[in-house]
Amino acid sequence: MSTTSTVDFLHKPGPTSLAELKVTTPTTVVIFGATGDLTARKLLPAFFQLWSQKLLPDALSIVGVARRPFPDNAFRDMMHEAIVKYADAGTVSAEQWQAFASHVHYQQVEFDDPAGYAALARRLEEIETAQGTSCQRLFYLATAPSFFLDIIENLGQVGLIRDAKDRCPSRVIIEKPFGHDLASALQLNRDITRILAEEQIYRIDHYLGKETVLNILSFRFGNAIFETLFNSRHVDHVQITVAESIGMEGRRGAFYETAGALRDVVQNHGLQLLCLAAMEPPAVLTSKGIHDEKVKVLQSLRIMEPSQVARDVVRGQYVAGSTVDGQHVPAYRSEEGVQPRSTTETYVALRLYIDNWRWAGVPFYLRTGKRLPQRVTEIAVQFKQPPLHFFTTVECIGDVCDISQAKPNQLVFRIQPDEGISLIFSAKRPGMLFQIHPVQMDFLYNRSFKVKIPEAYERLLLDALRGDSTLFMRSDEVETAWRYVDPILQAWRAQGAPPLHFYEAGTWGPQDADRLMDNGRSWRTPAV
Amino acid sequence: MSTTSTVDFLHKPGPTSLAELKVTTPTTVVIFGATGDLTARKLLPAFFQLWSQKLLPDALSIVGVARRPFPDNAFRDMMHEAIVKYADAGTVSAEQWQAFASHVHYQQVEFDDPAGYAALARRLEEIETAQGTSCQRLFYLATAPSFFLDIIENLGQVGLIRDAKDRCPSRVIIEKPFGHDLASALQLNRDITRILAEEQIYRIDHYLGKETVLNILSFRFGNAIFETLFNSRHVDHVQITVAESIGMEGRRGAFYETAGALRDVVQNHGLQLLCLAAMEPPAVLTSKGIHDEKVKVLQSLRIMEPSQVARDVVRGQYVAGSTVDGQHVPAYRSEEGVQPRSTTETYVALRLYIDNWRWAGVPFYLRTGKRLPQRVTEIAVQFKQPPLHFFTTVECIGDVCDISQAKPNQLVFRIQPDEGISLIFSAKRPGMLFQIHPVQMDFLYNRSFKVKIPEAYERLLLDALRGDSTLFMRSDEVETAWRYVDPILQAWRAQGAPPLHFYEAGTWGPQDADRLMDNGRSWRTPAV
Repeated sequence: MSTTSTVDFLHKPGPTSLAELKVTTPTTVVIFGATGDLTARKLLPAFFQLWSQKLLPDALSIVGVARRPFPDNAFRDMMHEAIVKYADAGTVSAEQWQAFASHVHYQQVEFDDPAGYAALARRLEEIETAQGTSCQRLFYLATAPSFFLDIIENLGQVGLIRDAKDRCPSRVIIEKPFGHDLASALQLNRDITRILAEEQIYRIDHYLGKETVLNILSFRFGNAIFETLFNSRHVDHVQITVAESIGMEGRRGAFYETAGALRDVVQNHGLQLLCLAAMEPPAVLTSKGIHDEKVKVLQSLRIMEPSQVARDVVRGQYVAGSTVDGQHVPAYRSEEGVQPRSTTETYVALRLYIDNWRWAGVPFYLRTGKRLPQRVTEIAVQFKQPPLHFFTTVECIGDVCDISQAKPNQLVFRIQPDEGISLIFSAKRPGMLFQIHPVQMDFLYNRSFKVKIPEAYERLLLDALRGDSTLFMRSDEVETAWRYVDPILQAWRAQGAPPLHFYEAGTWGPQDADRLMDNGRSWRTPAV
Repeated sequence: MSTTSTVDFLHKPGPTSLAELKVTTPTTVVIFGATGDLTARKLLPAFFQLWSQKLLPDALSIVGVARRPFPDNAFRDMMHEAIVKYADAGTVSAEQWQAFASHVHYQQVEFDDPAGYAALARRLEEIETAQGTSCQRLFYLATAPSFFLDIIENLGQVGLIRDAKDRCPSRVIIEKPFGHDLASALQLNRDITRILAEEQIYRIDHYLGKETVLNILSFRFGNAIFETLFNSRHVDHVQITVAESIGMEGRRGAFYETAGALRDVVQNHGLQLLCLAAMEPPAVLTSKGIHDEKVKVLQSLRIMEPSQVARDVVRGQYVAGSTVDGQHVPAYRSEEGVQPRSTTETYVALRLYIDNWRWAGVPFYLRTGKRLPQRVTEIAVQFKQPPLHFFTTVECIGDVCDISQAKPNQLVFRIQPDEGISLIFSAKRPGMLFQIHPVQMDFLYNRSFKVKIPEAYERLLLDALRGDSTLFMRSDEVETAWRYVDPILQAWRAQGAPPLHFYEAGTWGPQDADRLMDNGRSWRTPAV
């Protein structure tokens, strides 16, 4: 593995002040797909925030690239609107915007037209010369994946890619999906590594930039007591939930038809979260150290035979129902861009096994879906029961108590919303009777720390500009994740019409998912 | 050990409703020392509360006994005043009091005068016949310890003690101190067991009736994850603090001169708390099961040679200073009833070792003192550091952060005030930097449960009436605790003038106590 990060962001002693994080190399950022949603909602606001915090170099150019023609000013106005709307700095003053806007440019390019790239190269040189920003370049591919290769090849062709080892390197951030199955991912990696070195490729999964995701590592490896418990001796099972309340808003339907929940979430976010919860402590906390351990988890996932797929994977699709707000929403099959008899899964639940020494025999449950009752992402580690039940467990509302089953300890990492950690344990209910009652200790990020939690994109963009790939996905991670997911896709394909269980929008998915929960286990209802 | 409890209060399935706890046997309670502080502040209010909650039998007599002559009514008035003042039922209605007062009587007895006991026996028969309460009897000895034996012998003489196995047994509650050293404790046990069987003797330590003390057992044995961590593999050390802010108010001085902190707190509360934190899980959760395990801890305490006493025990005495309220308070030697050159310790700190498989090499630190900055009792379990420090630890006030040493995990049981459990761990500080910050998860009894926490005496009196000795001290516990404490007293005595370190009232004790804390350890400042 030739992957080394040029900056060991996580390596001790690491930067100890924000000032040390400041990018000083003159920098040009080129965003492909600059008129799209992601640029407006996330990328430009993130660059603006970073710039406001003085983390970006003074010598900075941001060049938006897309197919539609725009004068610079029209693009700036669009971006101004976006920043006012989406940047959480609150009010963006006129002076601030003026100062930032002078860094922002626009260039029209047809992504598959070589002539456009020659023009882009000329324009960049012009800008870089004028603004003194001709050193490192960061290309952000916020386009449909079908353009990734075209763009990279064309950039290479016109000499815009500089070597990773150069004092002024070029790097490329690629948005997911990275391939739509194993073969296409392997092909894509092969193709782009003809032009780019692995160290230049930053495969982004914005989940990895979230504060609580990072906190999983500090929680596990910064404390002595929890890591001790994270193994098959103490853990009964782990539940990972990536629930979305949205459906196919914003014309998502047409894309989603080609993806489905397994590709859209499990292959990336889902397995990434699983890796962080399950990985061994690295020897050193470097980008390579962490990626190597994550890959080992993915390599240890038990690949499913078709019969196991039938047993351990449940596919679902939502029918019409009501959201928590009582709003009636249509069935997936009635959404814009969706086939009326579509069998695409909008929900998937899996029972996974990690065949290594640490996790032997511990089921990991992973579920994700659209139109679930709430937007929530969490990892819940459920511990085994104590070996004997000394105490009667009760659950009370006020003074009225019911005797209930003993509740096992749970440790819950909530990634969104309301990032935090909860520990569920049993305590004696006050009173003359010796009864225990499940209680919860909470650590809430925004209550414990009165500082702003950075947006995932801010962190990731800054890391990419600093050449730190720790929080991006390495090629072997992507490929190994596909190696696990691909046999499931194949098993479904082989069946022609794989089983599809319908669930009402606004519910926690199809009832059939309950059958994955054996041995008295049950799906958590995440409490937010 | 012939000790079995007639009711296995803690044994599964156990009583599951308050109604099952109701004492139905006709009962006479006799309180010796009925005009004293304890009766007014704790005992009568507790009986009143139990009675208000309908946990006492309808056939109930409470007979106060003391040396001063009183008509029943005068005693009732005194008790009325006490209950209004100390019972937390808030307002005690006239009807309620009338109803309760009809159960309350008074009998004058000189504790060492056999004739007085003959009169008491006649009076009890009279009352019991009139009120239909002639069955079980509970004698509460709330007197100076010097009277314990006299009272018990005299009660035996006049036939007031009925066998423990009787349908209507007699039981005796004895307040601490139980002996003032090993020899006297052994002698007292020998003497009283000539008249009483062990099952009839309830040695009270009110600490054991506190909710959080009970919760230590449920926390440890009702949850799978913590017990796993409670051993020398994971624990660096344990700190037990029993801090009092009071000095010698209420003419305590004369008694305290004969006791000192080691006898007054360490031998009983201190070692009892240590037992609960350190004991093995019992095979069954019965009174005998728990007492047996507690005795094993006491038996495993490493007895100190005189040289070890000099090294591992620090004695202190307060000099004048200011309380947290800024009130100036006198030196111990200026307190009423205290010798002007007294060498009695008002503070003691010990480093103890439990020589068993679980705790080998783990120091237990135990400290107690008068005139410390606050009244607080807690057990803090400090875990080892993680094997390697991946992260920079910072401690911040607002945005200003200092790099600090990594903080180990701590689990703190707070017994008083504000009963609760806290877990101190490290979490990532939000922001671009990868720094961890110590944070705390709290479980507070009064916040999590909206039910009243019973007073320790309520629970213990009800247990004694129900014949459950789980939360009382068995003779071998008392003796084994003295076996540990006695060599320390002897070492001090052998030195003539054992070292005494002075500390200002309102501080956390003498500086010399810091030398017990080796290997980078330090005393906690309990945060309340």
